[in-house]
Amino acid sequence: MPRLVMKFGGTSVANLERISNVARHVAREVEAGYKVAVVVSAMSGKTNELVAWCKEAAPLYEPSEYDAVVASGEQVTSGLLAITLKKMGIPARSWQGWQIPISTDDAHGSARILDIDGEALGGSIDAGEVAVIAGFQGIHLPTRRLTTLGRGGSDTSAVAVAAALKAERCDIYTDVDGVYTTDPRVVPKAKRLDRIAFEEMLEMASLGAKVLQVRSVELAMVHNVRTFVRSSLVDPEAPEMANVEKAGTLICDEEEIVATQMEQQVVTGIAFSKDEAQVSIRRVADKPGIAAAVFGPLAEAHINVDMIVQNVSADGFTDITFTVPNADFERAKAVIETAKGAIDFHDVEGSTDVTKVSVIGIGMRSHAGVAAKAFEALAARGINIRAITTSEIKISFLIDAAYTELAVRTLHSLYGLDS
Amino acid sequence: MPRLVMKFGGTSVANLERISNVARHVAREVEAGYKVAVVVSAMSGKTNELVAWCKEAAPLYEPSEYDAVVASGEQVTSGLLAITLKKMGIPARSWQGWQIPISTDDAHGSARILDIDGEALGGSIDAGEVAVIAGFQGIHLPTRRLTTLGRGGSDTSAVAVAAALKAERCDIYTDVDGVYTTDPRVVPKAKRLDRIAFEEMLEMASLGAKVLQVRSVELAMVHNVRTFVRSSLVDPEAPEMANVEKAGTLICDEEEIVATQMEQQVVTGIAFSKDEAQVSIRRVADKPGIAAAVFGPLAEAHINVDMIVQNVSADGFTDITFTVPNADFERAKAVIETAKGAIDFHDVEGSTDVTKVSVIGIGMRSHAGVAAKAFEALAARGINIRAITTSEIKISFLIDAAYTELAVRTLHSLYGLDS
Repeated sequence: MPRLVMKFGGTSVANLERISNVARHVAREVEAGYKVAVVVSAMSGKTNELVAWCKEAAPLYEPSEYDAVVASGEQVTSGLLAITLKKMGIPARSWQGWQIPISTDDAHGSARILDIDGEALGGSIDAGEVAVIAGFQGIHLPTRRLTTLGRGGSDTSAVAVAAALKAERCDIYTDVDGVYTTDPRVVPKAKRLDRIAFEEMLEMASLGAKVLQVRSVELAMVHNVRTFVRSSLVDPEAPEMANVEKAGTLICDEEEIVATQMEQQVVTGIAFSKDEAQVSIRRVADKPGIAAAVFGPLAEAHINVDMIVQNVSADGFTDITFTVPNADFERAKAVIETAKGAIDFHDVEGSTDVTKVSVIGIGMRSHAGVAAKAFEALAARGINIRAITTSEIKISFLIDAAYTELAVRTLHSLYGLDS
Repeated sequence: MPRLVMKFGGTSVANLERISNVARHVAREVEAGYKVAVVVSAMSGKTNELVAWCKEAAPLYEPSEYDAVVASGEQVTSGLLAITLKKMGIPARSWQGWQIPISTDDAHGSARILDIDGEALGGSIDAGEVAVIAGFQGIHLPTRRLTTLGRGGSDTSAVAVAAALKAERCDIYTDVDGVYTTDPRVVPKAKRLDRIAFEEMLEMASLGAKVLQVRSVELAMVHNVRTFVRSSLVDPEAPEMANVEKAGTLICDEEEIVATQMEQQVVTGIAFSKDEAQVSIRRVADKPGIAAAVFGPLAEAHINVDMIVQNVSADGFTDITFTVPNADFERAKAVIETAKGAIDFHDVEGSTDVTKVSVIGIGMRSHAGVAAKAFEALAARGINIRAITTSEIKISFLIDAAYTELAVRTLHSLYGLDS
């Protein structure tokens, strides 16, 4: 019998009515013949309440105690869902992270999963008992202390459990019904993707399509866990829910996509992020080691640098442009000013009023001219490109924020993504 | 270094301000040189909320899942108190029941403690780290499922931990400052007892002085755990708090009381319970096996029978009077009516408008005439006694409820308990 992991987030289990709805989703899959493990988050708002208490008790709270407090939220949901399933006549039991155990390192508050013992868990679900697993948490076995995986950790729990159980699929239920070619609020013609490759989803997720945590997609890619994003808000017994092909977006291996599509799409989606700030250093003396002099101090200050563009040197001087998260803009400029002695430049300037727009698709590997088409189309709309970076499966443009929607719509049409 | 267990209930940890107050109580004892383990309940109201969710999810909820849900309340408090202590510079860590472990049977919802491993726990506190223990909970080791001990279980947790740690004392902090000779709301002259024997406390607790769970007193008696009832509402740094002799009531072995008191009090306290109903069966044919015919069916119906009085038989018939909890009154009468074929009686009557008043004292063992004095005094006040039962250390009277306060005051004065 195939095994299935289902994951429900905080809004899907916000109250007992919604938990009952979740139970009906589970019932559908049990009836379809799956051996089911369900991973649940804390009821919406609970984690925030618990975190607030820790902060009120001590702004610099002990992380291991924070974990003991916060992990209680998922514990409650797991018990309540198990109770609800049993009322419906479905054998079920709750599993806390430490009971499985889900073994993690001791980085309290943002622990990483080391290993999941799928033995007892798998035996239990194969015997017909739905496992209701408290997400977001684990145990550091040497100290027997509770750990949590950090915000959004329940997605990671679900994918890791699916890998340990060798599940056929990991269904992530969320408040959207899948991954779209771009944000439908910006492009009403955006359409849901039936499938997207792990690599593409990683770019989509890290570029602002906040459907899944980047970390859980990485884990799914490494262990080749077929991860299916679908809506928890629809009627669990609606006919379309039984047809998985049409109910959401499957995140899977590139080969599975190639095998199922007659002709490969060149571009899969358009992502954008407004959380960008541009920093430009003007007239930098162009000498060996200059990049290290600039980016070393930024790394030491734990500032995450994304796009980096350095113009070809003219008359011994060059300009260096890079982007940082909006929140780090002022700090980044200050770091560069402080390092002026080592860098030797004319001045630093920049803007937080910029957006990064990215064109993503594994099909770009085998198609030339994808970038050139974009340059033309953006130029035709009078959109100035401040910086460009490319990788094998994406092209990113930094543009003025005011042009965000126009650029996204233009590129969405250009690559034939309008429905 | 002596070890000390401190226990704080739900109202003492109802919010972060009160938790901070609890931390100051702990700080005082740490400074006094104790190696401290603290047992905490869930924040006031939390357990009720969790129980309500379980009932809403399914009126006949699975007890093991109920335990998983409800045990989370104490988990939160233990983490928050540990955070607060560390902020004050006091080394501390939280311990969940399963981490110690506190091993219980699998009677989910009302589990009994089988064993507590004091090894790691004792080592930790001896090394100077305050142990903050989630009360009310344990683990059924064979299944690794969470268990809870039932309402008021945190008192039992505290006494059991004190026994496992061979603690010098188990301090139960509550919203009263000790055990009184009777309810001060009824008798303003009631005074706090410095000491009370385990056996006396058992009678006081089960008779309505709801300071401590009967079960925790039984456990304290069996393991000879000196249990000290004191107030959590006073200023933790108040001078009188350092003088344990004057800060509450010590529940201890009879010998410790005898050794410290010049002259033994005959009566220690007057307890009363309004949660009584009297059932009388009139003109029962007095033949062998009649008691079994009456009380067998009541036991089968899980009705708890307390006082039993059977008059001497006259003309082959007798009257049988017994008491049951108020809530079981109608059911008890119905059970007797149903058994009429087997019992052979004239009719069943009774009243819920009765009170049981008890005179308690280990000194009664060596003093004659204690009961006779009471009969005289009550008669002089015109109080009719419906039934009497006695044991080695108590005399109980069943009287009309209207006379409760008068009877309690009369007996309180009679035995020299007025302050």
